[in-house]
Amino acid sequence: MDFRHSPRCQSYVDRVRAFVTNVVRPVELEHFQAMLDRGNGGDWTKWTVSPAILALKERARKEGLWNLFMPDPKHGAGLTTVEYAPLAEEMGRSFIASEVFNCNAPDTGNMEVLHHFGTPEQKERWLEPLLAGKIRSAFCMTEPDVASSDATNMRATAKVEGDEVVLNGKKWWSSGIGHPNCKVAIFMGLTDPAANRHSQHSMVLVPLDTKGVTIKRMLPVFGMYDEPFGHGEVWFENVRLPKSAFIAGPGRGFEIAQSRLGPGRIHHCMRAIGAAEVALQMLIERGLSRVAFGKPLVNLGANRERIADMRIAIDQARLLTMYAAWKIDEVGALAALTEISAIKVVAPNVLQHVIDEAIQIHGGAGVSHDVPLTALYSHARVLRIVDGPDAVHRGVIARVELAKYGGRMPGEPRS
Amino acid sequence: MDFRHSPRCQSYVDRVRAFVTNVVRPVELEHFQAMLDRGNGGDWTKWTVSPAILALKERARKEGLWNLFMPDPKHGAGLTTVEYAPLAEEMGRSFIASEVFNCNAPDTGNMEVLHHFGTPEQKERWLEPLLAGKIRSAFCMTEPDVASSDATNMRATAKVEGDEVVLNGKKWWSSGIGHPNCKVAIFMGLTDPAANRHSQHSMVLVPLDTKGVTIKRMLPVFGMYDEPFGHGEVWFENVRLPKSAFIAGPGRGFEIAQSRLGPGRIHHCMRAIGAAEVALQMLIERGLSRVAFGKPLVNLGANRERIADMRIAIDQARLLTMYAAWKIDEVGALAALTEISAIKVVAPNVLQHVIDEAIQIHGGAGVSHDVPLTALYSHARVLRIVDGPDAVHRGVIARVELAKYGGRMPGEPRS
Amino acid sequence: MDFRHSPRCQSYVDRVRAFVTNVVRPVELEHFQAMLDRGNGGDWTKWTVSPAILALKERARKEGLWNLFMPDPKHGAGLTTVEYAPLAEEMGRSFIASEVFNCNAPDTGNMEVLHHFGTPEQKERWLEPLLAGKIRSAFCMTEPDVASSDATNMRATAKVEGDEVVLNGKKWWSSGIGHPNCKVAIFMGLTDPAANRHSQHSMVLVPLDTKGVTIKRMLPVFGMYDEPFGHGEVWFENVRLPKSAFIAGPGRGFEIAQSRLGPGRIHHCMRAIGAAEVALQMLIERGLSRVAFGKPLVNLGANRERIADMRIAIDQARLLTMYAAWKIDEVGALAALTEISAIKVVAPNVLQHVIDEAIQIHGGAGVSHDVPLTALYSHARVLRIVDGPDAVHRGVIARVELAKYGGRMPGEPRS
Amino acid sequence: MDFRHSPRCQSYVDRVRAFVTNVVRPVELEHFQAMLDRGNGGDWTKWTVSPAILALKERARKEGLWNLFMPDPKHGAGLTTVEYAPLAEEMGRSFIASEVFNCNAPDTGNMEVLHHFGTPEQKERWLEPLLAGKIRSAFCMTEPDVASSDATNMRATAKVEGDEVVLNGKKWWSSGIGHPNCKVAIFMGLTDPAANRHSQHSMVLVPLDTKGVTIKRMLPVFGMYDEPFGHGEVWFENVRLPKSAFIAGPGRGFEIAQSRLGPGRIHHCMRAIGAAEVALQMLIERGLSRVAFGKPLVNLGANRERIADMRIAIDQARLLTMYAAWKIDEVGALAALTEISAIKVVAPNVLQHVIDEAIQIHGGAGVSHDVPLTALYSHARVLRIVDGPDAVHRGVIARVELAKYGGRMPGEPRS
Repeated sequence: MDFRHSPRCQSYVDRVRAFVTNVVRPVELEHFQAMLDRGNGGDWTKWTVSPAILALKERARKEGLWNLFMPDPKHGAGLTTVEYAPLAEEMGRSFIASEVFNCNAPDTGNMEVLHHFGTPEQKERWLEPLLAGKIRSAFCMTEPDVASSDATNMRATAKVEGDEVVLNGKKWWSSGIGHPNCKVAIFMGLTDPAANRHSQHSMVLVPLDTKGVTIKRMLPVFGMYDEPFGHGEVWFENVRLPKSAFIAGPGRGFEIAQSRLGPGRIHHCMRAIGAAEVALQMLIERGLSRVAFGKPLVNLGANRERIADMRIAIDQARLLTMYAAWKIDEVGALAALTEISAIKVVAPNVLQHVIDEAIQIHGGAGVSHDVPLTALYSHARVLRIVDGPDAVHRGVIARVELAKYGGRMPGEPRS
Repeated sequence: MDFRHSPRCQSYVDRVRAFVTNVVRPVELEHFQAMLDRGNGGDWTKWTVSPAILALKERARKEGLWNLFMPDPKHGAGLTTVEYAPLAEEMGRSFIASEVFNCNAPDTGNMEVLHHFGTPEQKERWLEPLLAGKIRSAFCMTEPDVASSDATNMRATAKVEGDEVVLNGKKWWSSGIGHPNCKVAIFMGLTDPAANRHSQHSMVLVPLDTKGVTIKRMLPVFGMYDEPFGHGEVWFENVRLPKSAFIAGPGRGFEIAQSRLGPGRIHHCMRAIGAAEVALQMLIERGLSRVAFGKPLVNLGANRERIADMRIAIDQARLLTMYAAWKIDEVGALAALTEISAIKVVAPNVLQHVIDEAIQIHGGAGVSHDVPLTALYSHARVLRIVDGPDAVHRGVIARVELAKYGGRMPGEPRS
Repeated sequence: MDFRHSPRCQSYVDRVRAFVTNVVRPVELEHFQAMLDRGNGGDWTKWTVSPAILALKERARKEGLWNLFMPDPKHGAGLTTVEYAPLAEEMGRSFIASEVFNCNAPDTGNMEVLHHFGTPEQKERWLEPLLAGKIRSAFCMTEPDVASSDATNMRATAKVEGDEVVLNGKKWWSSGIGHPNCKVAIFMGLTDPAANRHSQHSMVLVPLDTKGVTIKRMLPVFGMYDEPFGHGEVWFENVRLPKSAFIAGPGRGFEIAQSRLGPGRIHHCMRAIGAAEVALQMLIERGLSRVAFGKPLVNLGANRERIADMRIAIDQARLLTMYAAWKIDEVGALAALTEISAIKVVAPNVLQHVIDEAIQIHGGAGVSHDVPLTALYSHARVLRIVDGPDAVHRGVIARVELAKYGGRMPGEPRS
Repeated sequence: MDFRHSPRCQSYVDRVRAFVTNVVRPVELEHFQAMLDRGNGGDWTKWTVSPAILALKERARKEGLWNLFMPDPKHGAGLTTVEYAPLAEEMGRSFIASEVFNCNAPDTGNMEVLHHFGTPEQKERWLEPLLAGKIRSAFCMTEPDVASSDATNMRATAKVEGDEVVLNGKKWWSSGIGHPNCKVAIFMGLTDPAANRHSQHSMVLVPLDTKGVTIKRMLPVFGMYDEPFGHGEVWFENVRLPKSAFIAGPGRGFEIAQSRLGPGRIHHCMRAIGAAEVALQMLIERGLSRVAFGKPLVNLGANRERIADMRIAIDQARLLTMYAAWKIDEVGALAALTEISAIKVVAPNVLQHVIDEAIQIHGGAGVSHDVPLTALYSHARVLRIVDGPDAVHRGVIARVELAKYGGRMPGEPRS
């Protein structure tokens, strides 16, 4: 085993870290405060794109820190999953860095999907401007009326009628759909209930200005709206599109969905680890600077043991995520099922816990907006739900584990 | 041992439960939604008192469900601490019920202080209208610039100059100070650094319109401002008051502070237990009504064991709090130090945990405003900080425990 | 609520505590060491009854500290469950005190069964000498070949053939069956598989010298054999007894089993709490007397917070168990299902945890025989399995909880 | 990063796994049972070396699976720490495999010390026969009368008198000293209290037949004596040896001690991980084969989520340990302080937890000798104490972490 980054990976790590520290951080705190001052409202129709962030993006692009997630060197950095992972950690130390490097979800996943499954026309129309950072996109999968942790619950439909596909259904938690530049969504719906379980659903590219698409509202996360991206509830009512709007054709939704899950979870988890490092740093700096009962807070009670346990937990989460990334590269996401589910449980929980402890040591300031811990918390908390809640991932891991002992045959229904 | 409520206690429990269920709950959800619709802003100067809540208060008062916390039957229900505790649990099932019954913090503690230590003039001017629910009050103790978990860190001063007392200092987390009817604050400050450790501080009654008192801002708790009460940062700059503004005279601040701590913590903890019951109910109702992988969510994974553990935790927290209340009644708060600190650790943590699980089972809805779980969470989270953070209370318990074995003599400095 | 013991309860508490402290403890340490010196072997045929313990029993009996568990004042102290509970805690502070007061399992449960369901002949033959402490008894329910946490798995049979009942089956964890004075066992077996679910099983009184009864071996618990009681594996091969050996008649096994469960679990849990207090005391005394890095161990790292958490956990476990005892007295064991299962989860886990921490602070001594912590641990660990493992009890609690919301109708099969 | 084993490492992994599975396991269960049948007594003078194990050792040696831990290819496999680590995991799946491959503690550490610091004479006399597996050795550091977690507490002395060194003191937990072939111990004692903190102690080679060396007893671990190795209490009373018995000369004890700590902890932790895999396998196999309430135990309650959490915990512990091993190879043990302490906390706790759950799912069998889980438990439990208890390691990690923020300067006294 060799835990050293490859030279090109290390070089990118150094450059991204420097850029985030020196260029992004100063801007983002101001940006964040401005948003709070505006009242952090949920009326997305008034949201605008900050010129400061546009300038950061331009600078990042010029410096070659752009589309770093993209494994195809024609379009991005050409890094493997395990090489990109530490960059995601660096970006996770900031609220806005992912966007600055054009590496933010769900655009990354959408770009990968278009890259792998898109037609030349689809690529030209949507992938090019996404890669250029000129437009934003959304992904419409989760539904308000069913437990979406079970994808087979999906009620939205994408029916073929002649030369058209007709979409109906309610979606929510469509992240990024409130962005002024969001022009397209990938919609997932049921096309053929009679097909085999993995060929029933389709993905469809929906220009947001298509008739029948209505953004009903933005959803708050612990009161935060993540302006100017937002998390929207969107209704699709008899939305008609030419069949060329299908990605890879009808019935290939699950196949595409599975392809995007592995790397996406690596990105989420590594960003969570970066955020956990920030929270631990805040905890320690506060704990060293404040005094009670004659000692710095870090030296009171169990605080040193807590800090040790957090250091251990973060390091373990990082190593497991790097290992999952490496397995994706080596044997593919399907053979890394346990690891991908494991990090999805571990990393968000570690992050949530570290932030909670950081809040605690900050006292009243911790729950206020004087420090950005509650904003960080809202990100962490939602991460335990999106892309599969903890319990579902534990179920996957157990299923794989039991199968080693004949506990369940492949193809058996899940219990 | 007899775990049965006294007949008068049980009678009040029944009446409060019925009133909360039938009268308060329908109003409060509407009230809560209206607040969210208004944007939940922090500009307290625009806050108003809801006529709907005024009507509830009037009705509660007429029904004799008023000042239930007040042990003196001249002014309230005349209940012991252990008799009032279950009423606090019932009120904890609602965001606004405490206020409706004129039983909300910090007014309760302030009224008790005035009742026990106030002069006839102070009682007439402040206690009477508080008991009548006509004005609201605040308590100014915590400071932004020091770790306020150690009360000896306090920097604010209340200096005697001739016939006057002069206040200086910055306070924050002064709850209720944003309320349109908040007319008075109890200010705690350092009067005589040369006195013995427990006679250095004083409490002073400060009409909010006194010159030199400036409310700088309201502090958000996870983005919530608790309109129309709020948690304020208040600056006191050369605030001059006649010496008659002292409560019980200079140097008696700690003595008064200690007297209010016991019952106040019982109230907080029992309300937390009521809130935890609500969160558990929400969890179960959602878990029974949503289906994934062919089963109601409650039957998936570890959910049933989780529910069992939460039921156990809530019941244990309730029994411990009732026991602490009983000890306060029987032997006083000082002899119940372990129990009072123990519930302050246990109840808020149980509440926070149950809400977190309830959020998890609600999925995306749980972090949004579609259900009030994040609002409940913000209350729970701050409760682990106010009135002493967890670690300080664990320190108290350990000190008492070790002293049983000669581990530390009374009067030794705390470590 | 009133957390004060009744006067007669308090009087017994005082007397039992004094007797355990002054009379039992000095003898038991010697007794315990003698057992270890003998090699703690599993050959029960060589076990003898210690004259020292016989003397203690005689003295306890003379002082009226005898059969304290027995609610019928004709045969014992005539205490309610909630009054006896604190005596069990006092006995739990010693390895042998329960036996000294003739209050040890499974004799207590067996005596209760005989008292409530025995015929005059059964009482004369078995109950009288048990009450007198002249013989010991065993309870044969658990089986080696099936998961006995599900009682319907039971394979042993008690078939009626003419005037006889014929027993067949393998039992193990028959506690006390290795005792030289153990003369009788209560055997539980399947009588009528066609009867309704709660009328299929029977309890039968089996003199141990009956033909076909073979003690195969004693089972160690973490290497300890609990000499001279032991936990035996017993085979019943065509054991024939007159039908008068049935307790309460064929098919009443479950009814009898249920009647003995409530109080028995109270006893187990309160003894566990007493043992936890002993372990915590040992932890603190060691932690105060040993020094590392210039401080007593209790002042290092998180130890004070740990001690606080253990104090809280023990107090909560005690209150919950007292509450369960009170509910048994007031509304019966069936209506106290949640509480009885809750304490069965809580108390053994608290005990196991406190012992583990006590071991840790003792370092190498903790895992050796220089202190009795590993012996205590073996008791604690097995307690999480006997009388229903943790998970089964959590299942019961969840079932009751969900039923409040219509989650499962009575009579539905358990899932 | 590359998580693939080097080819020579993988080749050894395959061979060791096959040897353990096919050759060692069948013998060891018989061996283990024979030990239990003999009564597992603590009288080491009657212990003998099993011919079966001698035969296994001979076979392993012939197959080149011998001294695998030894980084110097002249004496062993010539593997790096990170290459040897997975072999230790394989050995950890068996109680006796480490010995079979001549890779058991404390001989491994003692051999390394002799290899690095021994004189040619010391090597010839002690290292050669140790490498050949002909003799065994012990390491005498821990003392019964002080908290040995703080090495500066050490009371034993190794004083220079003329040409001799004179040893005095009591040691315990000297593992392996009961072995019939144990011929030599490395004794650590105080030589010069006036020297600087890291030059006060010395290590001395003591032939066990030297006058004044008395083995007082073997210490049980949860009642197990680890026959024929044992953990002894040894008294050194005016033991006189020529100065040539010093290793590397007087005052170099700490330097030598530090050098052996890193790899030793890797070995311990990787063996713990191997043992945890065995325990998890036993848990799953039992949980699949036993049925309650109509389902295999693994499908009841929270068991699947528990299994998932254990899989995650084991995988994280392994990755962290491999990373620590790699850091030792790359930058040395001192620069890997955090990682070495982290694994020492994590791996034994994971192992203890997994065994505890495995015991629970085995029910009564789990605490008996029918399965080897309690023996495994005793190993796990003691591992949280030896080589520094958990709390000390958390303290080290916190110290390193705080130092990053200036929290403590190097050289400052530890708090």
